[in-house]
Amino acid sequence: MARTAIYAGSFDPVTNGHVDVIRRGSALFDRLVVAVGNNPAKRYLFPLDARLDLVRRCVPELPNVEVVAFTGLLVDAARACRAEVVLRGLRALSDFDLEFRNGLANRELSGIETLFLLSDPSQIFVSSSLVREIAGHGGDVSKFVPPVVDAALRALPRSA
Amino acid sequence: MARTAIYAGSFDPVTNGHVDVIRRGSALFDRLVVAVGNNPAKRYLFPLDARLDLVRRCVPELPNVEVVAFTGLLVDAARACRAEVVLRGLRALSDFDLEFRNGLANRELSGIETLFLLSDPSQIFVSSSLVREIAGHGGDVSKFVPPVVDAALRALPRSA
Amino acid sequence: MARTAIYAGSFDPVTNGHVDVIRRGSALFDRLVVAVGNNPAKRYLFPLDARLDLVRRCVPELPNVEVVAFTGLLVDAARACRAEVVLRGLRALSDFDLEFRNGLANRELSGIETLFLLSDPSQIFVSSSLVREIAGHGGDVSKFVPPVVDAALRALPRSA
Amino acid sequence: MARTAIYAGSFDPVTNGHVDVIRRGSALFDRLVVAVGNNPAKRYLFPLDARLDLVRRCVPELPNVEVVAFTGLLVDAARACRAEVVLRGLRALSDFDLEFRNGLANRELSGIETLFLLSDPSQIFVSSSLVREIAGHGGDVSKFVPPVVDAALRALPRSA
Amino acid sequence: MARTAIYAGSFDPVTNGHVDVIRRGSALFDRLVVAVGNNPAKRYLFPLDARLDLVRRCVPELPNVEVVAFTGLLVDAARACRAEVVLRGLRALSDFDLEFRNGLANRELSGIETLFLLSDPSQIFVSSSLVREIAGHGGDVSKFVPPVVDAALRALPRSA
Amino acid sequence: MARTAIYAGSFDPVTNGHVDVIRRGSALFDRLVVAVGNNPAKRYLFPLDARLDLVRRCVPELPNVEVVAFTGLLVDAARACRAEVVLRGLRALSDFDLEFRNGLANRELSGIETLFLLSDPSQIFVSSSLVREIAGHGGDVSKFVPPVVDAALRALPRSA
Repeated sequence: MARTAIYAGSFDPVTNGHVDVIRRGSALFDRLVVAVGNNPAKRYLFPLDARLDLVRRCVPELPNVEVVAFTGLLVDAARACRAEVVLRGLRALSDFDLEFRNGLANRELSGIETLFLLSDPSQIFVSSSLVREIAGHGGDVSKFVPPVVDAALRALPRSA
Repeated sequence: MARTAIYAGSFDPVTNGHVDVIRRGSALFDRLVVAVGNNPAKRYLFPLDARLDLVRRCVPELPNVEVVAFTGLLVDAARACRAEVVLRGLRALSDFDLEFRNGLANRELSGIETLFLLSDPSQIFVSSSLVREIAGHGGDVSKFVPPVVDAALRALPRSA
Repeated sequence: MARTAIYAGSFDPVTNGHVDVIRRGSALFDRLVVAVGNNPAKRYLFPLDARLDLVRRCVPELPNVEVVAFTGLLVDAARACRAEVVLRGLRALSDFDLEFRNGLANRELSGIETLFLLSDPSQIFVSSSLVREIAGHGGDVSKFVPPVVDAALRALPRSA
Repeated sequence: MARTAIYAGSFDPVTNGHVDVIRRGSALFDRLVVAVGNNPAKRYLFPLDARLDLVRRCVPELPNVEVVAFTGLLVDAARACRAEVVLRGLRALSDFDLEFRNGLANRELSGIETLFLLSDPSQIFVSSSLVREIAGHGGDVSKFVPPVVDAALRALPRSA
Repeated sequence: MARTAIYAGSFDPVTNGHVDVIRRGSALFDRLVVAVGNNPAKRYLFPLDARLDLVRRCVPELPNVEVVAFTGLLVDAARACRAEVVLRGLRALSDFDLEFRNGLANRELSGIETLFLLSDPSQIFVSSSLVREIAGHGGDVSKFVPPVVDAALRALPRSA
Repeated sequence: MARTAIYAGSFDPVTNGHVDVIRRGSALFDRLVVAVGNNPAKRYLFPLDARLDLVRRCVPELPNVEVVAFTGLLVDAARACRAEVVLRGLRALSDFDLEFRNGLANRELSGIETLFLLSDPSQIFVSSSLVREIAGHGGDVSKFVPPVVDAALRALPRSA
């Protein structure tokens, strides 16, 4: 009974918290698809190609992890890669309401189940937006992101 | 002792969750005013006229329900229609903080009371923004909105 | 269209927060039944008679308020006094989960609706159990309860 | 890669909410062990044998579900049945704090992961304690529990 | 052992809730720096000079309070004024998640501690954004802000 | 301006989370009184003397920390040791409601302020009751408590 899970997000950029979920998720499912969302109406710090590339370079050692792009509804992306499960990391400080609404709506729309994994407490305050804000002011984010992401952030032109 | 309650929102568009509150509220008060908010600085999927019309067509059988437009502060709209009570649907996943702040501020500003009704659990994840997002990607929202709203959504030009 | 609401609790003892809800509720409904619960398996600080008497003495000026005792399920008490609505005070610090579960279960069991009123922020931290604890250690609770309750607490034998 | 999950609780008695999680969990894992906890210091409405029997009779059609008793720490029960995952149903009205603390502690103690499934919204207010309270007062719980449990509750001697 | 705390915000405009925290904070620390944030990418109702001036005029009697502007990361502002502690007012209706994430991130980035003071319940629903919204519609905010702020709001040109 | 803070609890037993708050609190105040509560009506795993002794042996290196016993109301204990501040550790998973109610009630009763420190995320799931439960079943709690407490737990007679 092979199981595929999909783990979706903007990953702008991927953080240590994301990598923790990917590692643990890859051990729980036969195949884990990391789906990097791209919304044409949204501005990102890193373009889609860079976001895909950074996720791949963070977990090169995991053979059952695939990294793909998606646009539109998550349930359509899940169907496209034949995932039975949406995997989410749940932090003590997550937005439970949004998680519940999305999970219940996805199940109603497509029958796909959402499974939540508890995020590691040491990552409780790390988010992509925090990383962007600190790095944007020249702060040190090396404790919050993998080295390849830290290097990519330092290589960005500083906003004045 | 006749009682008028006001139930306000953007209704962009009206959902099954809204209709459930309107039906149950109309049974609890002598007169229920549904106030459709219009903020000139905000962009809506449906213009004000369509939003008013869709609410009216969802509850034609309720004689004590009036549907009106409002701009500005809710407490001013309440005064204008002589409502003694603001009615709100409270979902298990509501933004309690916002509900509390608004309810307490409205009472401080005008003495008007807010009464909360428990939303039906089957509607727990339905919101206008979810409906807009799913419909915008061509998804099926017929479980979340009344048939007249579903038809109106299908008649909209798809965003590319 | 006459409306009766029921407001239930242990009232051991009645606090300023309870009195605030009773006053405001009596202005919103034609008839407000205050139902003082008595569970034979539970130990109370004040016996049922005293709890009924203290509630009555806190709101002598409200002609549409009745104070009654009840045992068993709230929905049965509501039916017995022909209440269409359960009234609850909701504090910013309430146990929302319990309130939701009870309200939804009562609706499922009997069709009765629960309406929540926002408690006054100045009463946000007042509860009967806090009053019992402070008074039990000889502390001053005169800011938290009506004078008749304060006097009744002082008249109790102190626990060693 | 065969996966075993453990789903633990008191099941005093098993409710429709539990049965929903068992059914959906049995479709997500190769083997699902339902572990019925028994704490000698605690009083139950149904003895252990009856609780085991009722769970078994609710899901006779699921071949990959085993129902066992356990005493002591959940992580020890998980090891004993070689489960890699603790499965939990998460309700919008769950006690998140307790769920998080237990899940993180279990991972720290034994490395076992906890996966949360979203409970069905229609079961949001159902709990064993609610069922015991309503049934104890002679109320109708047939909407909240499977028929075999409803029959077992009716067969109990009523507490005076 | 002299202690300096920093209390930061946009103060657009300063409210009674802010003033309450500043007063109580000035009694708890040897020196309290009120840091008025200015983000060039953000639009404010009052320009930086006016926001600084209004804060100063609200607490002229407190000799150990300094009011300064800051741009960028709070931890850098804290270092610049040699503050050992970030002071925050915590309302029952605060965004706990954001408070926790920021506090933990600041400690990780710089070792600076965050101390939370409980906001006065009477201010529970007051926020700068509420004040801006009410005043923008010509409502009366004199219960929510100090008189100098009320006057400044009335002196603003009304948005059409 | 010398400042004394009081940090109160049952400490049955003291955990790594408590020790973290004591260490950080001792650096923020001139004097930190750790008040070990003793309620004659409550059963403890460790008697008062042992609880006092274990706290003292966890932080022998902190000269400005005093460990005392208290019975009754916290505000009375605070007055007795001339503390101006109640210090509390706030975990992402704390019972905020209880913390708020207690803090606001203490301020109303005595004018004493409560200051909250953010608990370390790595201690997020550690509590005395969890430690008692795991140790009571023979589990390993060495990651959750200081070595002296671990030794004291192992020296206890096992409950059958």
